[in-house]
Amino acid sequence: MANRFVVIMAGGKGERFWPASRLKRPKHLLPIVGDKPMLTQTVDRLDGFIEPENIFVITNVEQLEGVREVCPSLPKENVVAEPVGRDTAAAVGLAMLLIKEKDPDASLAMLPADALIRDLSGFQKALDVAFLASEERPQLVTIGITPTEPATGYGYIQKGDSIGEYKGAEVFKVVEFKEKPALETAKMYLESGDYYWNAGMFVWSVRAISDALTQFTPNLKSGLDEIESRMKGGGDLDALLAELYPELEKISIDFAVMEKADNVVTLAATFDWDDVGAWPAIERHFPKDANGNVANGEAVFEECSGNIVVGEKGHLVALIGVDDLIVVNTKDATLVCKKDEAQKIKDLVKGLSPNRV
Amino acid sequence: MANRFVVIMAGGKGERFWPASRLKRPKHLLPIVGDKPMLTQTVDRLDGFIEPENIFVITNVEQLEGVREVCPSLPKENVVAEPVGRDTAAAVGLAMLLIKEKDPDASLAMLPADALIRDLSGFQKALDVAFLASEERPQLVTIGITPTEPATGYGYIQKGDSIGEYKGAEVFKVVEFKEKPALETAKMYLESGDYYWNAGMFVWSVRAISDALTQFTPNLKSGLDEIESRMKGGGDLDALLAELYPELEKISIDFAVMEKADNVVTLAATFDWDDVGAWPAIERHFPKDANGNVANGEAVFEECSGNIVVGEKGHLVALIGVDDLIVVNTKDATLVCKKDEAQKIKDLVKGLSPNRV
Repeated sequence: MANRFVVIMAGGKGERFWPASRLKRPKHLLPIVGDKPMLTQTVDRLDGFIEPENIFVITNVEQLEGVREVCPSLPKENVVAEPVGRDTAAAVGLAMLLIKEKDPDASLAMLPADALIRDLSGFQKALDVAFLASEERPQLVTIGITPTEPATGYGYIQKGDSIGEYKGAEVFKVVEFKEKPALETAKMYLESGDYYWNAGMFVWSVRAISDALTQFTPNLKSGLDEIESRMKGGGDLDALLAELYPELEKISIDFAVMEKADNVVTLAATFDWDDVGAWPAIERHFPKDANGNVANGEAVFEECSGNIVVGEKGHLVALIGVDDLIVVNTKDATLVCKKDEAQKIKDLVKGLSPNRV
Repeated sequence: MANRFVVIMAGGKGERFWPASRLKRPKHLLPIVGDKPMLTQTVDRLDGFIEPENIFVITNVEQLEGVREVCPSLPKENVVAEPVGRDTAAAVGLAMLLIKEKDPDASLAMLPADALIRDLSGFQKALDVAFLASEERPQLVTIGITPTEPATGYGYIQKGDSIGEYKGAEVFKVVEFKEKPALETAKMYLESGDYYWNAGMFVWSVRAISDALTQFTPNLKSGLDEIESRMKGGGDLDALLAELYPELEKISIDFAVMEKADNVVTLAATFDWDDVGAWPAIERHFPKDANGNVANGEAVFEECSGNIVVGEKGHLVALIGVDDLIVVNTKDATLVCKKDEAQKIKDLVKGLSPNRV
């Protein structure tokens, strides 16, 4: 069996989780849901499936130290920082280079750092199926999420004919990758039963993704080739990236490859999945009081309903006579936001002075 | 001219200003409105009118240290702590004893620690008139506040015939002290023009208040007499109070004396006055943004109106899509309260664990 690797993408800013999330301590470095940082949970979720030496994390220079702190089980050199963000295709290319150096015959899974998945064995089984599919032939495998609502915040994957089963799990040809739809379109997707949410979980062989990049983003690929040849020449990775990475073409992997390639396949996740995309999402994961209030931290509710409170240890948040608010307290900032206005948090953060973000 | 003294009553718990206000650091020790603690402003307001040696503060043991800190201009021994609260009549009696020991012929003004008054010369002029009235004959002088609304949160003073002018200010016989009225009654008081708010500002000679206590609360007075005779015997004041003060009759000065005595007179304050009784009151004293939001501290408002934010230096409070809230942040507690539910803050505080109040 070919070697298997996992590369976790941990470069998000997490602005939607301000003020808990900061540039240097974004969502995936925080225990937004659960006792450990989301990234730590993602690494732990691979326990027994992949050796720590085969797990890589790609982050950015601002978060490098923080990421290494919350991933104590990983070799330090497996946490790699992009000197600047060049969108997801460049990150996929970097992941490919890192794994190719270890084993050009390997397959690798790319996983987001901050999704919440509780069904460990279901998750590992799906990952195993995806690896098997990637190892059988050069195809780009995605794990799709069966939609539960007409969400407009995710891209969708339209599945086509079955290409067969691996260990009892059916894998389908992908007809098309769809960008985030309008609500009516999302409803249609949901009703048809032929669409999955794109959760950014991909598995492919080094060879398959390398070929796809060559075919669909030759500019990006030639930049990556230069980094690769300089790496082989013994160049220091950080120095090489600092010099060459900023020049890479800036494009998303969905737009650059997934929407164009005809060898994309998908399987449906049988495990639970929540990307916990913004504060309102966390109420699904905490017990509610009789009036629908939830608290991650110490809170008192007086004649309140539907509120979400997030605080820090030793700090009490008291609410009186208010409904459907998000209240987040940290040492140097407090947010009070109407739940259905949470999408404005990101804009607010853009307007804050640098020491606040 | 007889000696004049001022005794400031600074024993309130300030629960209505939680979480900024705490048992050991209540409202009058905080700069709720203005740059200095309310008590400091009250002391400063007497500058040029009364020497610091003639200003006393009565507080409680929990606040003693804090009170001395915010009253650096006063002799340390002029800040006296009740070992336990025995309501206002006992405090008035204690004030009387303290001043009588200095000068049995003196008059003293009793002032609350935490009212906001900006017209310094108007205030000092009214105080001067009240002292003159108290010095002319043994009467109990109150400074009343002309009502601006049918408030149900204050007691009222019904004025009767004029008893003459002092320096151009008219002084009236008091017909009756009225307890906090229902709204309809309060409206009637407001319309009649014959009622003032009782702001707890009294001026009387040692002799007049001593006689009134003897006449109307003989039990309390005999307890005070015992403290007095033991003081004359050279007893340590704190030790005496610790021993005898808890035994004093517990009754308010309004109920014990003011509602019964027939030698009560009043004059109307010509100065501005605000007792800043609860969080909603502070918005009168801060500039409003275009949407009626006010902030004492760093705040950002996004699609918000009518909010009051109180924060601490270096802490940002951000509000999105919320209206008419009180948001108060301190190091160990945050309050989010609908403005028209502010009266519930006091009840909430009663239910908190001791380290939170």
